[in-house]
Amino acid sequence: MFTLPDYIFPDFTAALFKNAPSVRTMPAPLDGVVPENFYATTIYPEYFKIHDTWQLMSESRMDCVVVITDDLPQAIEFRNVKKGDSVVVGRQESAENGVYVDHFAFAKKQNKGDNFSFRTSNSRETAYSRDYDRLYELLEFERENGYILWVLGPAVTFDQDSRNAMSHLVNSGYVDALFAGNALATHDLESHFFNTALGQDIYSKENISMGHYHHIETINRARNCGSFENLIEKYKIEDGIISACIKNKIPMVLAGSIRDDGPLPSVYANAYDAQDALRVHTKKATTVICLATQLHTIATGNMTPSYQVVDGVVRPVYFYSVDISEFVVNKLKDRGSLSSKAIITNVQDFMVNLQRNLPE
Amino acid sequence: MFTLPDYIFPDFTAALFKNAPSVRTMPAPLDGVVPENFYATTIYPEYFKIHDTWQLMSESRMDCVVVITDDLPQAIEFRNVKKGDSVVVGRQESAENGVYVDHFAFAKKQNKGDNFSFRTSNSRETAYSRDYDRLYELLEFERENGYILWVLGPAVTFDQDSRNAMSHLVNSGYVDALFAGNALATHDLESHFFNTALGQDIYSKENISMGHYHHIETINRARNCGSFENLIEKYKIEDGIISACIKNKIPMVLAGSIRDDGPLPSVYANAYDAQDALRVHTKKATTVICLATQLHTIATGNMTPSYQVVDGVVRPVYFYSVDISEFVVNKLKDRGSLSSKAIITNVQDFMVNLQRNLPE
Amino acid sequence: MFTLPDYIFPDFTAALFKNAPSVRTMPAPLDGVVPENFYATTIYPEYFKIHDTWQLMSESRMDCVVVITDDLPQAIEFRNVKKGDSVVVGRQESAENGVYVDHFAFAKKQNKGDNFSFRTSNSRETAYSRDYDRLYELLEFERENGYILWVLGPAVTFDQDSRNAMSHLVNSGYVDALFAGNALATHDLESHFFNTALGQDIYSKENISMGHYHHIETINRARNCGSFENLIEKYKIEDGIISACIKNKIPMVLAGSIRDDGPLPSVYANAYDAQDALRVHTKKATTVICLATQLHTIATGNMTPSYQVVDGVVRPVYFYSVDISEFVVNKLKDRGSLSSKAIITNVQDFMVNLQRNLPE
Amino acid sequence: MFTLPDYIFPDFTAALFKNAPSVRTMPAPLDGVVPENFYATTIYPEYFKIHDTWQLMSESRMDCVVVITDDLPQAIEFRNVKKGDSVVVGRQESAENGVYVDHFAFAKKQNKGDNFSFRTSNSRETAYSRDYDRLYELLEFERENGYILWVLGPAVTFDQDSRNAMSHLVNSGYVDALFAGNALATHDLESHFFNTALGQDIYSKENISMGHYHHIETINRARNCGSFENLIEKYKIEDGIISACIKNKIPMVLAGSIRDDGPLPSVYANAYDAQDALRVHTKKATTVICLATQLHTIATGNMTPSYQVVDGVVRPVYFYSVDISEFVVNKLKDRGSLSSKAIITNVQDFMVNLQRNLPE
Repeated sequence: MFTLPDYIFPDFTAALFKNAPSVRTMPAPLDGVVPENFYATTIYPEYFKIHDTWQLMSESRMDCVVVITDDLPQAIEFRNVKKGDSVVVGRQESAENGVYVDHFAFAKKQNKGDNFSFRTSNSRETAYSRDYDRLYELLEFERENGYILWVLGPAVTFDQDSRNAMSHLVNSGYVDALFAGNALATHDLESHFFNTALGQDIYSKENISMGHYHHIETINRARNCGSFENLIEKYKIEDGIISACIKNKIPMVLAGSIRDDGPLPSVYANAYDAQDALRVHTKKATTVICLATQLHTIATGNMTPSYQVVDGVVRPVYFYSVDISEFVVNKLKDRGSLSSKAIITNVQDFMVNLQRNLPE
Repeated sequence: MFTLPDYIFPDFTAALFKNAPSVRTMPAPLDGVVPENFYATTIYPEYFKIHDTWQLMSESRMDCVVVITDDLPQAIEFRNVKKGDSVVVGRQESAENGVYVDHFAFAKKQNKGDNFSFRTSNSRETAYSRDYDRLYELLEFERENGYILWVLGPAVTFDQDSRNAMSHLVNSGYVDALFAGNALATHDLESHFFNTALGQDIYSKENISMGHYHHIETINRARNCGSFENLIEKYKIEDGIISACIKNKIPMVLAGSIRDDGPLPSVYANAYDAQDALRVHTKKATTVICLATQLHTIATGNMTPSYQVVDGVVRPVYFYSVDISEFVVNKLKDRGSLSSKAIITNVQDFMVNLQRNLPE
Repeated sequence: MFTLPDYIFPDFTAALFKNAPSVRTMPAPLDGVVPENFYATTIYPEYFKIHDTWQLMSESRMDCVVVITDDLPQAIEFRNVKKGDSVVVGRQESAENGVYVDHFAFAKKQNKGDNFSFRTSNSRETAYSRDYDRLYELLEFERENGYILWVLGPAVTFDQDSRNAMSHLVNSGYVDALFAGNALATHDLESHFFNTALGQDIYSKENISMGHYHHIETINRARNCGSFENLIEKYKIEDGIISACIKNKIPMVLAGSIRDDGPLPSVYANAYDAQDALRVHTKKATTVICLATQLHTIATGNMTPSYQVVDGVVRPVYFYSVDISEFVVNKLKDRGSLSSKAIITNVQDFMVNLQRNLPE
Repeated sequence: MFTLPDYIFPDFTAALFKNAPSVRTMPAPLDGVVPENFYATTIYPEYFKIHDTWQLMSESRMDCVVVITDDLPQAIEFRNVKKGDSVVVGRQESAENGVYVDHFAFAKKQNKGDNFSFRTSNSRETAYSRDYDRLYELLEFERENGYILWVLGPAVTFDQDSRNAMSHLVNSGYVDALFAGNALATHDLESHFFNTALGQDIYSKENISMGHYHHIETINRARNCGSFENLIEKYKIEDGIISACIKNKIPMVLAGSIRDDGPLPSVYANAYDAQDALRVHTKKATTVICLATQLHTIATGNMTPSYQVVDGVVRPVYFYSVDISEFVVNKLKDRGSLSSKAIITNVQDFMVNLQRNLPE
């Protein structure tokens, strides 16, 4: 059975912390502009000494500034800062300045390798059996206790078994929120109408004649209905991911992008509105599973901290990146999202594995 | 020396065309919604018989509907259709219906291989010497006669030589418009201030201490200035791609995305506004060069036809996709952008090759 | 249930065939050297008119010459030709010359796509559900009726579940012959002794201290025993792929390579002896499954025809290439092995899928 | 100008070393079998205390045992050990045992990054400008002072400019030895006869009719001549890599493999004979450049130490791996060849860069 690791709070009675000054702030000079020497957030637990009390920031994310509101620290994106906000300044992070970053929260004993050893990186040749086993346990735990955010690339719905598996997980309670783009939703609905994705049959792989109409025909129907709810009702759609989310009232954030046709109803045209909508979920997410999408995976990685504070308890966020490309998962690491776990495989096999191994 | 291939117009005096009916239209039922049985565009030259005259559509793109305005056909995105617009309906494309698609415009003699042969696909092991030679000739020609649209991923500015090469091409007149995202601009400007990209030195590759501040510090300065023009003036920025574009008054379309920090001034927050802004250039582009960006390459591929009508002459559009991943360039082909040419290499080497081989 | 497609023999009563001359031969001038204008084999069924009778070549492979022995055609590698052998000459292959290649054996109706369509290539985003379903049926059929050759890269044994799955398939009768290199065998045996592959635990992925000794320690023990049989007996090895093959008397061809440590006993030092040993199996193979090895997959592809003659019946050979890299599977196609099927995924997931879905 | 880093010898007057026992050995029990508890080599400088003197091993390589002959340590492959050889035993490596491994030879100051930073791995998005600049300087230096071993995959000769560049480097003195397989030589010679590689024109990329004969026709001619020297003389071959090597008397090691056609004359059929032949060069190599070949790169990496002793001076070996696949270069690191430098690009661009930037 899965258990959460304990988090050990820093000992704030130590001299280091007691003698530290309170955090300094400066007012934001303009809307969306912050003071010189601003402090920027990381993915780790961060404490700010405010009126002599060390306050842990909850609902964090990296690359934000910290605004003090009602004596509490908040991670705010540059564009959301308002003129006059009290922005933390100074870049030291070991208490000297009233800021303390706990880089070693949940740190396991390092894999203390020898000076000469093989196989130190993560690749297609890495063993994933244990990762799967742990993930099954984790998802069971999180269904009861956590908040599971799924981030899907369109390939999840390009294959019949994979599309069915994802719908099944939604219906079984393993999905608390879904983040994707216009394409995932379009091809999922296209599959209902034509059994194809971009004109190719999702089981037989046959390219259907006039198949290049399928996705835009789908989009036109949806636009005509004005909402997913209307579309699903009118066409009695009972299969697929979008239908499962609507029926189970799972919130979806669909971010528009420069490559979209359509778009479908409810897709965010404005990228930063989409970020704000996604952040509602990354503030709550305790497990994030990203599948076959470089863009959305990195976006979510940017906005997800390595920990959450749930009922006063500090717990880790589990972040999985599942992709067939080592580049994608390594890129995530290169952006500071150090705590992510990678599984390098075809997303279809991954989805079917989850369906088979998770209890209803 | 480079010469354009001749385009041979269909013989509209032939019975096929003379006996064909005029095109049928239906009014759009709502803003952004089109009639049942709408006709959708491809990347090829398309003719529409209107009042007994076959009209070639200019400024085309795929996956749009055709609206007849002032007796001329126009490719309009679904979202830009207005209620009551006259939308072409019917899906035949061999004149039966008043629509004729010229699939074989500019078609070369097929590589008429044997029944048993090797090496039919495009990969890292393909020979690119001739592609380079042709591209040099093409760009010289287009500098005088065409409209060259560049589509850049951030990696173009992650290396010093590559960044310099791109700036040089802008200054030498080989760039008519630039399409990129917030990241390309951010890291290009970061390189001015810190000689880094995402905190890593673009020459020595050293990870600079506190380097994770560099890109957001850059963004904050730009937001404070309110525009690239002000930023460049205030900080006297004379190096890099953005500075070169501003000085040479090269139009830039910077599309915001869900993964952005900031964003910088002048970045489009709304994805569809960005599409509209980009379409201004894809309507004119005669050569498109896409470097190291899957998202923007596919976006541009979607919006670029295989031909343009320039001063009444029909000419091909040359579309290059340069990426280290076979997947990216093959994906472009899988989306119907069949006429693209791929060069599979590191974008740094590609850029330096262009700089070395193109005349000032 | 799986059924083999019918093969339709050419109509040799047609004038084309009746009027054709018998095949011409020339003697090989030297051992390992063939006459000018030699005819070279393909992967397709080939017929040779000998004494007025059209003889189908059985046990074919590509890139060989055809030696006529006892009035029957045989595909012989250049290096195996003997001085004076009667080698077929002339390069026409439509009967003009006494040679007829049946390029369209088993050809299905072409996927007769439109002039404008998406998704024509094979990638990580292709749907594989049906391929799996067909493969399960095929393997059940072949267990009773065919000859299944497995070609394994070392990654098959880098993960505990995958290693167990492969052993299980051997024990269940789904493996008729195994082709691999020194590394697969080494790391499979290393897993018995240390539960590691190249020093990394195949379940926990921990890098074990002094793990760089594990594979050479394993090799030394095997060399000391002198044979796999002795090693397995001495150390009572009951787990893993090599042990399963030895116990079930499944023939193994282990080809040595330039990157080997050791090698283990029974590994072929001579690459061409290994080819000859492998050809014994490719002459019989009706299904070939290649997993996660570019080198051995291409080697096997070179040596495997698209058909076999089994009890006088001509049937297709099913050739699967399973790899995480599109490049590897496309490369196979680029070498003329046109009939192969690709599944692009992590080999661990593939193996576990087979284990789960095949009857004991 | 390029200068070698100084190597600082351990201070053998220190107590640690003075008090250490001499190394222990055991006789090999059989040919090709070593004693229990054998010591295995790494890529680092290793010292063995023999008769109270610390002896540096020269001409090292990893994963070998150490045989003491004439009071000097030698790295010997398992298969080359003879019964009765004195093999070093014991696995400690910090002098306790008479063995000392200098893991930090030439170690530069670590890139002492922060606790939170981006871009720590090596990818297609890494900046390579400085690597190129250093490599140009290094090769100029090594032409005069070192021994440059090139390891080539066949793709080097698949493109006209790349093939010419490599020939040029041979003629200009930048190549001291060449290691490749049968395919590189075959397609280089095929290019002379047909201007193709595997039937595809190396400039125009046209697939030539009957092109699948080209490489085997080439092989047959070479086999008929009996040697490269005879072939080159008979056909007056003045272009290409093989011809350049023969004329400049550059030693070539061509290793046969399981996927070969032919093979050509002088190709090693026996993989371990090929290893022995290659080791002659890895014992001398001061710079190794591996291009577009996973198999041969790893083979060479296994056999190349991180240092050489040249005229009594200890100097580093520079090992470059140039490939379009991050996987290949990371795999090299995963095998303990930690000191290699990677350039991730198309090998054609790499070759042309060298040709342009190195003095004649």
